[in-house]
Amino acid sequence: MTLRVGIIGAGPSGLAQLRAFESARQKGADIPAIMCFEKQDEWGGQWNNSWRIGLDAHGEPVHSSMYRHLWSNGPKECLEFSDYSFDEHFGRPISSFPPREVLFDYIKGRVEKSDVRKYVRFNSVARHTSYNEATQEFTLTVEDLKTNLTETHVFDKLVIATGHFSVPSVPEFKGIKTFPGEVLHAHDFRGAERFYGKKLLMIGSSYSAEDIGMQAHKMGAASIALSYRTTSMGYDWPENTVERPLVTHFQGRTAHFSDGTQGEFDAVVLCTGYQHKYPYLPSELSLKSSNVLYPGNLYKGVVWQQNTNLFYLGAQDQYYTFNMFDAQAWFARDVMTGVIELPSLAERQKDIAAWLERQAVLPNHDAEADFQTDYLRELIDATDYPSFDLDAVCQLFKDWMHHKKTDILGYRDMLHRSVVTGTMATKHHTRWINAMDDSMERYLDGPSQDVDTGSPAAVADILAAR
Amino acid sequence: MTLRVGIIGAGPSGLAQLRAFESARQKGADIPAIMCFEKQDEWGGQWNNSWRIGLDAHGEPVHSSMYRHLWSNGPKECLEFSDYSFDEHFGRPISSFPPREVLFDYIKGRVEKSDVRKYVRFNSVARHTSYNEATQEFTLTVEDLKTNLTETHVFDKLVIATGHFSVPSVPEFKGIKTFPGEVLHAHDFRGAERFYGKKLLMIGSSYSAEDIGMQAHKMGAASIALSYRTTSMGYDWPENTVERPLVTHFQGRTAHFSDGTQGEFDAVVLCTGYQHKYPYLPSELSLKSSNVLYPGNLYKGVVWQQNTNLFYLGAQDQYYTFNMFDAQAWFARDVMTGVIELPSLAERQKDIAAWLERQAVLPNHDAEADFQTDYLRELIDATDYPSFDLDAVCQLFKDWMHHKKTDILGYRDMLHRSVVTGTMATKHHTRWINAMDDSMERYLDGPSQDVDTGSPAAVADILAAR
Repeated sequence: MTLRVGIIGAGPSGLAQLRAFESARQKGADIPAIMCFEKQDEWGGQWNNSWRIGLDAHGEPVHSSMYRHLWSNGPKECLEFSDYSFDEHFGRPISSFPPREVLFDYIKGRVEKSDVRKYVRFNSVARHTSYNEATQEFTLTVEDLKTNLTETHVFDKLVIATGHFSVPSVPEFKGIKTFPGEVLHAHDFRGAERFYGKKLLMIGSSYSAEDIGMQAHKMGAASIALSYRTTSMGYDWPENTVERPLVTHFQGRTAHFSDGTQGEFDAVVLCTGYQHKYPYLPSELSLKSSNVLYPGNLYKGVVWQQNTNLFYLGAQDQYYTFNMFDAQAWFARDVMTGVIELPSLAERQKDIAAWLERQAVLPNHDAEADFQTDYLRELIDATDYPSFDLDAVCQLFKDWMHHKKTDILGYRDMLHRSVVTGTMATKHHTRWINAMDDSMERYLDGPSQDVDTGSPAAVADILAAR
Repeated sequence: MTLRVGIIGAGPSGLAQLRAFESARQKGADIPAIMCFEKQDEWGGQWNNSWRIGLDAHGEPVHSSMYRHLWSNGPKECLEFSDYSFDEHFGRPISSFPPREVLFDYIKGRVEKSDVRKYVRFNSVARHTSYNEATQEFTLTVEDLKTNLTETHVFDKLVIATGHFSVPSVPEFKGIKTFPGEVLHAHDFRGAERFYGKKLLMIGSSYSAEDIGMQAHKMGAASIALSYRTTSMGYDWPENTVERPLVTHFQGRTAHFSDGTQGEFDAVVLCTGYQHKYPYLPSELSLKSSNVLYPGNLYKGVVWQQNTNLFYLGAQDQYYTFNMFDAQAWFARDVMTGVIELPSLAERQKDIAAWLERQAVLPNHDAEADFQTDYLRELIDATDYPSFDLDAVCQLFKDWMHHKKTDILGYRDMLHRSVVTGTMATKHHTRWINAMDDSMERYLDGPSQDVDTGSPAAVADILAAR
């Protein structure tokens, strides 16, 4: 009987899984019966962003945490598909840090060239999963959001590809309930134009706080305070930006910090991270993890320990992204189809334990990049996913982190070389700090009409003119 | 065997169901085995509001659509429990339009006096329901949000009490994706302080648009435009408030209306209503309805036509609220326990059809109030829920609508008489337009220190001082 594979989610991870099977088919292999369920009406996951906040048009939680004016915060050369280069997609070199729409176009390009759209049921949300130990089958209940009809489907293998940067972690702060300004989580942030002239407080010290804070600066915010729990980011911030330790409480519009300082703010953005959440899975199949490079209970970061018919893609914290999802999807494919034979439960546990031990003592970000590089190397070596120079990409990560340390507002203007094609990125026509139009059209074709001064007044003029 | 009853939701409707069984128990009846599942960590439903928007601390959709400075927008005398009066709860007369916290306290007072808390599992979200025709049993999958453990429970009767004012309807508007200001649905509105001095656009022409618009006026918004699809509200708005027909599109911060006018705005609040949504139910048990006084497919507005073991409470649009949920819960109780014998499917269908026919030709709001009054009378006559003077309450609704027409900013200062106790409401110490503190403490005990001028500057001073 044909193997039946269910995939939940058609973002970068789910699409990687489709592409992995497609690649095998192109090489002459028989492939399983595949169904992929996507909640949104288009594929792309996070990259298919929305202006809505909270709940979407069908009343489902909005998936994407992305926003207007989001430009890649890592070099595109670190996430390039090794079987579909940027050169192949755009037909010419581009810069290293493109805006969201350009990267989304790149992701779509690969799958649209393949014949995989037929596997995807859009507007279809997974509601409930049960597993029958006797028959080794999953029964998945899916709701068609357009008709509200619920259906069940039976699968031999199930791939969880719904990501873990969609469900915000929103801690309570004393007094926040009566803070009179806007309070939102980074997940619901859609653009900083409205923070022009405002005093902002960002709570958090990771990518969201840094990126939203600096977008607000770019858009003319009066001041930005970044509040950290344990460790400050320590970048060379612009003059109007400061770091503060954790907020102890709010009183009216005043935030009090643990070092005794205080400040008045117009808005608070909670950049407090995300939860792993799989409401459609029973607890015994549901991954519980914080955002770490190696969640426990997944062999090779992919295969569920207690039920090897269940697979998770992209469940890790990520230096590598698209290419890591690919490597995981190729690995999952080969486990599903028996090309890769799994070792015993105990041996798998030993393998996981070794990674967890190493993870526990990672001293710094460079070591983290090395760690994930080594992880990726193991995966790639195990399958026919086209290999690439992992050491070179790892060095790109380190260079990038160094650039950020040196110039938090300018690192996106740096150029990097593709390890897939050897192509050097080209200088973009506008520096990031001055680029006020993040459309693909403007990125690819626009002459440099953007203002060449980042002055708040100039920005306000541009925004008002839209 | 003892009847097993599952109740989903412990808001006003779910609590009414618990109270209905408690009332029977106090009169010596044997009552079923009851389990009530509440997603939040406290009961009260909408009244248990949150500062969070979108998703809650557990990553579940925030239930409540309420906000700071929400004062009842209908006379409390129209929603009084006939078995637990305001006099009994507060021990003294109060005004007719109390703020949220005061009404929440009243709801809690009745159930806390009863011994019903033991039936409620908090932090428990319904995930999935199946119905076995052969055994006539529901199997309900529930997740404990604190432990992430999923459990199944079997019930003979299932009561849907999760409301229908929690999942926003959020239509698309051309150009809204690049509107540079804040865009949110009324569901995610938490307070208008931040709209001081701002130009606001409210899209919608029902309670949310009116109430949020007038709160914004009270808090010093520069101007408020209310955009309607078909019919303007036509109240005697303050000077800074106008009604406009529907938005055709946005261009930057400019909204264009269908009459060719346009305006620049700082923020847009979508007061575009809510969806009936029951993600934990299979489609064949799930009510599809717009917000109407008589949804089809529910006998007496309560009993699911194709499966009379399933009950919906509060699924209607509402003039009556708490006392209607009571009447429905008492009716549902008596159907479950066999005290009320249901007529045949065909007879029930005939009854529903008669109500739908009458609904279809309701000429105006007064007729709507009459309609729901007649509906409620039928329910109350069918059970031992303490009756009250329904005609008098219906007249209160009509008076209230008249007051709103006359004075949209002043109708909350009017006084009404209880039909349960005959008590006349007392004048509140501060007019609504000037009441800047909506806490229960201030409401019950506060001397009149609120400003007696609604000037934006005075409001700003008060807000800044908090």
